[in-house]
Amino acid sequence: MFIRGKGRMIKSIDQLLPTILQKEKIVKIENNYLLIGDRRELPFKNDYVKCSSIDEIAKALKEMATQGGGPLQVGLTTLNFVAQQIEKGKMADSINTFIKAVHTLVQARPTNTTMARSLYKVIDRLSMHYQCSLIATVNDVDLVTFVNQIVTELEHSFDNDYLKMGEYGSSLIEDGFSILTTCFAEHSFMLSLMKAQKEGKKVEIYLNETRPYFQGSRLTAFALEELGIDFHIIGDSAGSNLMNLGKIDCYMTAADLVTMDGYVVNKVGTLANAISCSYYSIPYYAFAMSPDTTKETKDEIEVEIRDGKEFLSWKNEPITKQTYSAYYPSFDIIEPSLVDLIITPKGPLKPKQISDHYLKES
Amino acid sequence: MFIRGKGRMIKSIDQLLPTILQKEKIVKIENNYLLIGDRRELPFKNDYVKCSSIDEIAKALKEMATQGGGPLQVGLTTLNFVAQQIEKGKMADSINTFIKAVHTLVQARPTNTTMARSLYKVIDRLSMHYQCSLIATVNDVDLVTFVNQIVTELEHSFDNDYLKMGEYGSSLIEDGFSILTTCFAEHSFMLSLMKAQKEGKKVEIYLNETRPYFQGSRLTAFALEELGIDFHIIGDSAGSNLMNLGKIDCYMTAADLVTMDGYVVNKVGTLANAISCSYYSIPYYAFAMSPDTTKETKDEIEVEIRDGKEFLSWKNEPITKQTYSAYYPSFDIIEPSLVDLIITPKGPLKPKQISDHYLKES
Repeated sequence: MFIRGKGRMIKSIDQLLPTILQKEKIVKIENNYLLIGDRRELPFKNDYVKCSSIDEIAKALKEMATQGGGPLQVGLTTLNFVAQQIEKGKMADSINTFIKAVHTLVQARPTNTTMARSLYKVIDRLSMHYQCSLIATVNDVDLVTFVNQIVTELEHSFDNDYLKMGEYGSSLIEDGFSILTTCFAEHSFMLSLMKAQKEGKKVEIYLNETRPYFQGSRLTAFALEELGIDFHIIGDSAGSNLMNLGKIDCYMTAADLVTMDGYVVNKVGTLANAISCSYYSIPYYAFAMSPDTTKETKDEIEVEIRDGKEFLSWKNEPITKQTYSAYYPSFDIIEPSLVDLIITPKGPLKPKQISDHYLKES
Repeated sequence: MFIRGKGRMIKSIDQLLPTILQKEKIVKIENNYLLIGDRRELPFKNDYVKCSSIDEIAKALKEMATQGGGPLQVGLTTLNFVAQQIEKGKMADSINTFIKAVHTLVQARPTNTTMARSLYKVIDRLSMHYQCSLIATVNDVDLVTFVNQIVTELEHSFDNDYLKMGEYGSSLIEDGFSILTTCFAEHSFMLSLMKAQKEGKKVEIYLNETRPYFQGSRLTAFALEELGIDFHIIGDSAGSNLMNLGKIDCYMTAADLVTMDGYVVNKVGTLANAISCSYYSIPYYAFAMSPDTTKETKDEIEVEIRDGKEFLSWKNEPITKQTYSAYYPSFDIIEPSLVDLIITPKGPLKPKQISDHYLKES
């Protein structure tokens, strides 16, 4: 670990991260509401979307109030929220209440399955809790405390994983590197850059603006500004132009999903860059907390097709006629041969090594 | 020729083309003003930018009031405008007045050299006219008529070329094709589609929206709507996603410039698609009126780097902080091995055949 507080692991990585990635800015519970940090107005405003029900939370996720790793954090906090609602008598006290909530959230963002898998892990633990409650003896903590314990445990484990991936990521970065990135690659990418920076390596980022929400121009740029790292916003299709000029040393992105056979799923645009990287012999590295161990092959991936209308206007300004047809496949599937390394908490792995390091689950 | 009016060639192809490509919509002279059709407000408005001087015309070109083949047409009409101004005594009657005007226009859009080469051709003819004027005997037509004759002659020759390229283009399109395109490929592409349509071939277009001006979403979509051809707007980096799904049969674009050694210059984003086409074995065809016979190799290409700020807002809505750095190389250079055919008036040529069909000029 590269960052320790007084000789031991810090309790939270929040203090290291750019504001936008701090847990309280992603989601928090306040006065019976679940508040989701609204990334759509960044970098100008950082308000919260106020949700009083699971349906409202799912709607906010569907409408992209947060994205990338945001839904995972929202999902975990939602479980705390549900426990509180049960305690206040506003929801039924049963495992089904939790299961229903998780189902609703998972349906809101079907491609990134990290949230789904994490929430189902909590459900497994909770299920045992409810079964034990029936025999009455082990139920020595209240539900809110119990759920909070499980969630905190998971959060710490994720933080630990992020730090490891940051270390592995930075080891792949050399002094003077120009790095291309797409969308908002969040914790692992930012921690990689911070570690590289700390080691005195100078880096420069070219970031795809990432239509139609401009996560690159708005979120990645905002985070990099805070870290004091040089960056230049470019069009979503300009990566190859820079590669052709010899200006890119590596391409780094998050991965919304990795299958057991080494396919990487990430924001649309990643595939085009990955193919160009291969053409110009530039390495492509994808960060992934873990593969989706339930997905043996790419055929099991469910790719979210979003409403094409999102391409027809920006804020209140129409770009073109609202009646025109637009098609918006929001994620690319990148084949293993185009990915040099998948940076996981177990180390940087070649796509074909994934199945050696992770066990298939059904 | 596939389109004939009453058994002979039509005089102008305007009546065939979608409104946006008709000469009067691109540029016209009215009441001492040169009016440039403002494509920036399309498809909502189609007003004109009113110019009273060469500097104002150059400014409108620089600010993208028109683009693609637009500047060529504006350049030719500007020569008529200069002749009229000379006749009215508002400009000096000398070949230098024309040369200065042409220099100013050429500097406004340095990458697409078709305008430059065409205007210099007119200058050569005019130069002879001025020399002959000195010996007084051959000057039997006034300047306005003379310039107009040369310009009209060139326009007819271009129209003829467009029609030929439309024929060659359509011969490469099969019934049921899905065609990817970037930016606004104008006359040759539209005529190819119209000819294909006329022959009963059903086609469907996927068009890159083309940031930061959205020429795809606004201009190509508008023209295709008028022609009644099905289209879907997609993000600038989504082409590969569709190729991966087997949804694209060929990629067709204009070419702002072709060098004698077969390099194609076109809107940024073309290279990424061309590399992906090569990866998925999908043909890429570029339309070019002719190579730039003065450019022997790609090293002689001057690529326009535009202001990155154009990526930071849309109309009055800021996308992100206006202080952020953005980099906007507006054109890609595509190497010959990535281009299947360059569709010229001399037929579809392999990039390496260009130098066999065109003579190098200095």
